[in-house]
Amino acid sequence: MSEFRFARGFRAAAGRCGLKQSGKPDLSLLVADGPCAAAGVFTTSLVKAAPVLYDQAVLAENPAGVRAIIANAGCANACTGDQGDRAAAEMAALAAQAVGCAPEQVLVLSTGVIGVQLDTAKVARGVAAIAPDLAGDQAQALAEAIMTTDTRPKTASATVEIDGVAVTLAGVAKGAGMIHPMMATMLSIITTDAAVAPDLLQAALREACDASFNCVTVDGDPSTNDTALLLASGASGATVGAASLARFTAALTEVCADLARQIAGDGEGATKLVTVTVSGAPTVADARAVARVIARSPLVKTAVHGGDPNWGRVLAAAGVAGVPLDPRRLALRFGAVELVAAGTPIGYDESQAAAQMAGPEVDITLDLGLGLASGTAWTCDLSAEYVSINADYRT
Amino acid sequence: MSEFRFARGFRAAAGRCGLKQSGKPDLSLLVADGPCAAAGVFTTSLVKAAPVLYDQAVLAENPAGVRAIIANAGCANACTGDQGDRAAAEMAALAAQAVGCAPEQVLVLSTGVIGVQLDTAKVARGVAAIAPDLAGDQAQALAEAIMTTDTRPKTASATVEIDGVAVTLAGVAKGAGMIHPMMATMLSIITTDAAVAPDLLQAALREACDASFNCVTVDGDPSTNDTALLLASGASGATVGAASLARFTAALTEVCADLARQIAGDGEGATKLVTVTVSGAPTVADARAVARVIARSPLVKTAVHGGDPNWGRVLAAAGVAGVPLDPRRLALRFGAVELVAAGTPIGYDESQAAAQMAGPEVDITLDLGLGLASGTAWTCDLSAEYVSINADYRT
Repeated sequence: MSEFRFARGFRAAAGRCGLKQSGKPDLSLLVADGPCAAAGVFTTSLVKAAPVLYDQAVLAENPAGVRAIIANAGCANACTGDQGDRAAAEMAALAAQAVGCAPEQVLVLSTGVIGVQLDTAKVARGVAAIAPDLAGDQAQALAEAIMTTDTRPKTASATVEIDGVAVTLAGVAKGAGMIHPMMATMLSIITTDAAVAPDLLQAALREACDASFNCVTVDGDPSTNDTALLLASGASGATVGAASLARFTAALTEVCADLARQIAGDGEGATKLVTVTVSGAPTVADARAVARVIARSPLVKTAVHGGDPNWGRVLAAAGVAGVPLDPRRLALRFGAVELVAAGTPIGYDESQAAAQMAGPEVDITLDLGLGLASGTAWTCDLSAEYVSINADYRT
Repeated sequence: MSEFRFARGFRAAAGRCGLKQSGKPDLSLLVADGPCAAAGVFTTSLVKAAPVLYDQAVLAENPAGVRAIIANAGCANACTGDQGDRAAAEMAALAAQAVGCAPEQVLVLSTGVIGVQLDTAKVARGVAAIAPDLAGDQAQALAEAIMTTDTRPKTASATVEIDGVAVTLAGVAKGAGMIHPMMATMLSIITTDAAVAPDLLQAALREACDASFNCVTVDGDPSTNDTALLLASGASGATVGAASLARFTAALTEVCADLARQIAGDGEGATKLVTVTVSGAPTVADARAVARVIARSPLVKTAVHGGDPNWGRVLAAAGVAGVPLDPRRLALRFGAVELVAAGTPIGYDESQAAAQMAGPEVDITLDLGLGLASGTAWTCDLSAEYVSINADYRT
């Protein structure tokens, strides 16, 4: 596998500025050669970090002229009040100065400790140090510099033909890990060399996120900082219009879903990637809602961890998803083994069922028997290691 | 402390019928001397166990004439289809025969394995064995015979003066433990010797449950079998009417909240009881909703387990409760130590904050700064032992 690169028209640089106590890379810049259309999907939490509020303002006012993204790890700049707002703006200004654009053309991402003021002096020194590297392409280094408790960087790419031109979509993400003292955040940066009008770009990103990042659960809750950003450089020469939007969105969804699966599989303490598919639903939204509730259930996640085909927990979780269902129409499979039909267990072989839970990937499929729509959610198992990471960090 | 007893007008018996593989007590009967007003609050899950559906039918048709409750542990009779419905009715008939009443005067409770058919032959033998004990009062034994993974029985009582008479409320509960292969259920049986019309009794139980059992979370999800039943014998001679309903409901809420705290403190793997109080809310419902989301958060629960005053997780959880709030008005205390004011951390002493988490009871208080209402939720910490109980039972 060749090294990950962003789409044409983008350059990246990454390095250390001292925000992570570990001394690992914690600052990065993504710079576009010219103004880009930009779209963003943000946490629905009412407790939003300062960079989230800053980015929402930039996208509202300047969605066709974004030039750069500056990202730090080690400090979330969340629950930091007015001082936090000023720090986010200062980060944007520092990046703007390095790039040669206006602060209103810069998006800001932060992840790390909640409730600690961002040390912008460190960011300033970091920007000065990494800006010369923007001549090269440090996309892989950027993917590493946004990590917090992730054990590995997450990158994904896809190509799609638009106007006879091969258009690239290439993105990175960091996971929903949370660790002492107060870490948060799913972040993703996706680039494309297609030209896409901001409103179409936003629609495509919203749809892709609904089918990917919004279907991942590790802890169950969105964080203060969750953000997915998509920049379109147009460097390929191809323009996405009404006729090609669906194809572009499909490729974007593929990239986002790839990253989402990587996030789920790298959840804190994870030993297994769990894919929950709900079929036979009246609508895709219903299917995803049920899948998410199953994927979120600590009882389902511990059962998967133990390799226990504990199907009652899956049905019990489905029953509280807030989606109409008929218990007597439910059919359930673990991997290829059917366990439940018409809402009651069928005579399955217990050891065969357990075998479906033994590998690193576990597939749970629930059919509601009510319609034709389906949806998927991803999670990981819940291990004692998760508890240890989140409880015993100080001790 | 004297041994627990139900209110006047009720007798109890309990014993073993072989539904629990452990051979521990698993069958019990509560019998009223005469027809009682009855009320019930049930799981909101759409996947309801057969006894839930049976009880809902009894209460709809016969809310003033209930004579008995039969309860088993070891088998939830959930996801058991038509055969499960017949088994619930058969349990009621067996109790009715022993008591000398009609099956429509009997309520049924089951807890235990999901998806396994109930062996009614065992229930029949068990009823025959314990019925002679109904002459005595085995209330404490009943509290033990409804346990599953509970480590201790849960009982609570209160008295309240109605019409110049001391009226008793006395109840038992079992906790929200879930264990292999598919266990479920919070159950509670509460008795009173007041006379209360069924509609008032139902209103009182609904209000009490909303402030107690519905504010407990261990795993986060309601089960297929959750049920709270309240029977009023009238044996005290006092009648609760419109004028005394609030006082009666307050005493009932006290009993239910006592049981709810016992359930939270005895959650699987629990080492600490966590009380989350949300104040300054526009409505009680809002306050409880925010408290429940905080109490449910695995990140908050692991932080409590580790004794880590990780307040960012509390604010992050509050932000996703679906209740309007202003992050810049939030104030947070752990025990007596103020950590956050106006949404940002204040200069608190870290070791003092950690000391608030060290004991067996942890109090988290979040003020929304928006109104005058408050609400409470109870949970336990999330320990590696929880994962072990729920994942590794077979190994």
